[in-house]
Amino acid sequence: MKIALAQINYHIGNFESNTSKIITALEKARAAGADLVVFAELAVSGYPPRDFLEFDDFIERCLLSVEQVAAHCKGIAAIIGSPSRRADIKGKNLHNSALFLADGKVKAMAHKSLLPNYDIFDEYRYFEPFREFEVIEYKGKRIALTICEDIWDIGEDPLYTINPMDELIKQSPDLMINIAASPFHYEQARTRKEVILTNVRKYNLPLFYVNHVGAQTELLFDGGSLAASPRGFVFDELNYFDEDLRIFELEEVINASPKQDANPLGILTDKTVLIHDALVMGIRNYFGKLGFTKAILGLSGGIDSAVTMVLAARALGSENVRAVLLPSAFSSEHSVNDAVELAANLGSPYDLISIENAFDSLDETLQPVFGDLPFDIAEENIQARIRGVILMAMSNKFGHILLNTSNKSEAAVGYSTLYGDMNGGISVLGDVYKTEVFRLARYINKDEELIPEHSITKPPSAELRPDQKDTDSLPEYDILDEILFQYIEKRKGPKELVAMGFEKPIVDRILKMVNTSEYKRFQTPPILRVSSKAFGMGRRMPIVARYLS
Amino acid sequence: MKIALAQINYHIGNFESNTSKIITALEKARAAGADLVVFAELAVSGYPPRDFLEFDDFIERCLLSVEQVAAHCKGIAAIIGSPSRRADIKGKNLHNSALFLADGKVKAMAHKSLLPNYDIFDEYRYFEPFREFEVIEYKGKRIALTICEDIWDIGEDPLYTINPMDELIKQSPDLMINIAASPFHYEQARTRKEVILTNVRKYNLPLFYVNHVGAQTELLFDGGSLAASPRGFVFDELNYFDEDLRIFELEEVINASPKQDANPLGILTDKTVLIHDALVMGIRNYFGKLGFTKAILGLSGGIDSAVTMVLAARALGSENVRAVLLPSAFSSEHSVNDAVELAANLGSPYDLISIENAFDSLDETLQPVFGDLPFDIAEENIQARIRGVILMAMSNKFGHILLNTSNKSEAAVGYSTLYGDMNGGISVLGDVYKTEVFRLARYINKDEELIPEHSITKPPSAELRPDQKDTDSLPEYDILDEILFQYIEKRKGPKELVAMGFEKPIVDRILKMVNTSEYKRFQTPPILRVSSKAFGMGRRMPIVARYLS
Repeated sequence: MKIALAQINYHIGNFESNTSKIITALEKARAAGADLVVFAELAVSGYPPRDFLEFDDFIERCLLSVEQVAAHCKGIAAIIGSPSRRADIKGKNLHNSALFLADGKVKAMAHKSLLPNYDIFDEYRYFEPFREFEVIEYKGKRIALTICEDIWDIGEDPLYTINPMDELIKQSPDLMINIAASPFHYEQARTRKEVILTNVRKYNLPLFYVNHVGAQTELLFDGGSLAASPRGFVFDELNYFDEDLRIFELEEVINASPKQDANPLGILTDKTVLIHDALVMGIRNYFGKLGFTKAILGLSGGIDSAVTMVLAARALGSENVRAVLLPSAFSSEHSVNDAVELAANLGSPYDLISIENAFDSLDETLQPVFGDLPFDIAEENIQARIRGVILMAMSNKFGHILLNTSNKSEAAVGYSTLYGDMNGGISVLGDVYKTEVFRLARYINKDEELIPEHSITKPPSAELRPDQKDTDSLPEYDILDEILFQYIEKRKGPKELVAMGFEKPIVDRILKMVNTSEYKRFQTPPILRVSSKAFGMGRRMPIVARYLS
Repeated sequence: MKIALAQINYHIGNFESNTSKIITALEKARAAGADLVVFAELAVSGYPPRDFLEFDDFIERCLLSVEQVAAHCKGIAAIIGSPSRRADIKGKNLHNSALFLADGKVKAMAHKSLLPNYDIFDEYRYFEPFREFEVIEYKGKRIALTICEDIWDIGEDPLYTINPMDELIKQSPDLMINIAASPFHYEQARTRKEVILTNVRKYNLPLFYVNHVGAQTELLFDGGSLAASPRGFVFDELNYFDEDLRIFELEEVINASPKQDANPLGILTDKTVLIHDALVMGIRNYFGKLGFTKAILGLSGGIDSAVTMVLAARALGSENVRAVLLPSAFSSEHSVNDAVELAANLGSPYDLISIENAFDSLDETLQPVFGDLPFDIAEENIQARIRGVILMAMSNKFGHILLNTSNKSEAAVGYSTLYGDMNGGISVLGDVYKTEVFRLARYINKDEELIPEHSITKPPSAELRPDQKDTDSLPEYDILDEILFQYIEKRKGPKELVAMGFEKPIVDRILKMVNTSEYKRFQTPPILRVSSKAFGMGRRMPIVARYLS
């Protein structure tokens, strides 16, 4: 039996485009002699459709797409993800389903049993979990068909009380197929493949796995669909960060021997490279799916905006990224020179617009209420906010989307100005700690000095008052980032952090900064998610609270 | 048996304060001869604790609070809500529990079985549902103890596959106790009481119900804890929008007859009055729990900022609300006069700051890039954003929190400026449609003309260009609001809206405006929730999508 895996970049709610891509892949697989073509979880709608699932009209559109795809399934079968309506009145009204299409119609269904409802997942919000299990027979083969999370609960502290494959295996299947929507983070491909290999070893069956690829606002999907051998290695994997279609002969996957000295996990890419590629895809798809081509950003001469600009140039083309240099009285000459040099290196357009007159004018405007009060955070923020006004005015005038350039360390401690440098349609580095931003810069510069060396080596500064340095009010970034990582990604509390060797006053101060700046992050742009715990939909904290604050 | 219901305004994560309030109420109930005092769901932590529940340290603090409260339970028992750790390794690690405390310790537990995971609720994110049911015996009475949602699934399209009270009733309980965290919206008190009366009638038992009161960022809790008679009426209900403690003699509740001509549902308050009272509480608690006393807002002379200012003055005191009038070249003279009059009526401080010089300066700053391009949305937004800069500068300088004054109709169609009039720490009217804002204004003015009549009667305008009116680009508000209500609150799709009699081109245009402005609402301040579907945590839509857009 020939099985095609179709890895597609879907567009949420764009039924015409999704259905057309699905049918194109189906025809291509048929032309290549495939017996079965497998598409991802909730392929017809794109993932995650979120509360669109609560609209009857949206579900009808999904089911219509299924019908349209089914009509093409003659002489070939397909497995495709879609929401489906439940007949049983008890429980929620939908299942998250894998439909088996053949002979022009829906011939069988499997429904998702384990509904992830943590981090960025909200599946129990919409779907009823399924508790009956039946293999699907096709061309003499028995298929154990599952959906994403269904094969993930194999650890020592299971999150669910049932394991679907433990049930399905009782029916003696010949192969496993898992359709998924498994969002990227920099450790996810490795973890995913470890989970898949644990399954093939445990059940002694081949597994065909189809993932999404492409960006859906915050969520990035890296693809990496694959066929895994029952002997416990990745037989072959599809493209990462790009669409792909590949056809496998079932017997070949079953009988293959592992290559000598090859890692059973297949392709494993360096963390910094993964983040780089994911962010480029994230920017490209954010613009492409919204129908925009051009970006604008404030280029400060610092490392964050420099890295953001290079990633945007790689995503959209240098000519489509417009840099705006917005010096104030406190900007160093270096800053302007470094920014100009970067724009020149990329061949991108740039504008130099001093904010001094606008600042003076606002200063004067506020004189009647501020009187002789000393320069403080208010004036620092006015500068950042004037920059925000100018960038948004240009975005409005020319139809560019503004890129936010804040990094995760800043976002975590609230070291950025709401309605100022926090502005933007999408945050490129909001899930990248400062220490990782440095590694990205080094990676970008590996062949030539694209980002001026000085932008990388000079001490980070917001340049909002004379001689300001980030370390005036923050610990060194290597310490800061490790505390943040343990608190944010690893859910460690203050006692555990002190037990790890961090000083209590620093721990207390940092956690307090994180918790008291929730109100800022509530209003932050969507952040391209590259870690296991990004600010945004996957991290839900109260604003008005008093805990570690 | 004497049962005390303790309705408390908790502060999320503020264990010292919560525990102290709980113990104070317990001692007060003891002094009044109560046998049992009942506290709300997750009382020790406040509700909703959200992802704090993922921190071991946070759970330990909860359990420590339970111990402290239990130590006071000598000669009196208590029922209190807290997360609890599960022994079983399978499934999630926590329950949402009701602990029965007596003789200085935890004597029994009930765990929540039905975990709401819709709208603003995320309980399946943290908790494992419970499937074993046992009544609690105390002083010869058998108590069927449930938690909030456990008694709600009594409709014709049940959301869950099990009904806890149907199980507990088999054990012949004498009374029902339900501890809850039931957030306010303007229909919720009625619905809640209907649900409670359905339960008492179905099981022929009295029910003692304890709710939270107070605001937790977006979520408002109206209190209204109550005792319900097995004969199907509300025996007595506690305060709305305020803390309360009341003691009931069980036999008296069981034996009471309904008052002639009384509504079995008890107190039912008009929608506009409810919204008014809820918003005043929401503002007061947002400031109080964050430790702030003073608010600032832009006062335009229009109805939205006028209503916001009155609500803030009632929440914080007139002297603590500072109005800033920020006229531009397009502001009518009336606007300034109306605004001044309102501030004078309230006796609140105000400042008049023209934005013309700052606008001219920014216009000049942008001249090299804008050249001779015509005045458009870019310049309109610059005005709104300069106002935002000035208000935030004053907020930063003086330690005020900026109040956002946008209404729900504007927020829905994106008729507001990101980083301009969308700024604020909290949005007061973001869940109130424009037509309801008018009703609020009329209600506020019922005894005297606090809001200048002209602010209410003049045609709404953003005054960002000459002679602009809201109706230039929007349908009349009564039509707009009805379409929005059906789409947002009632989840009606385009076909259903047309079938209801709305014109297709208008429906299509409005839904498109709503869906294409998700990116703006993503960055909006938290909105005080007064409807069944507010923008914010309870409404989760993709930004990058193409559905009805």
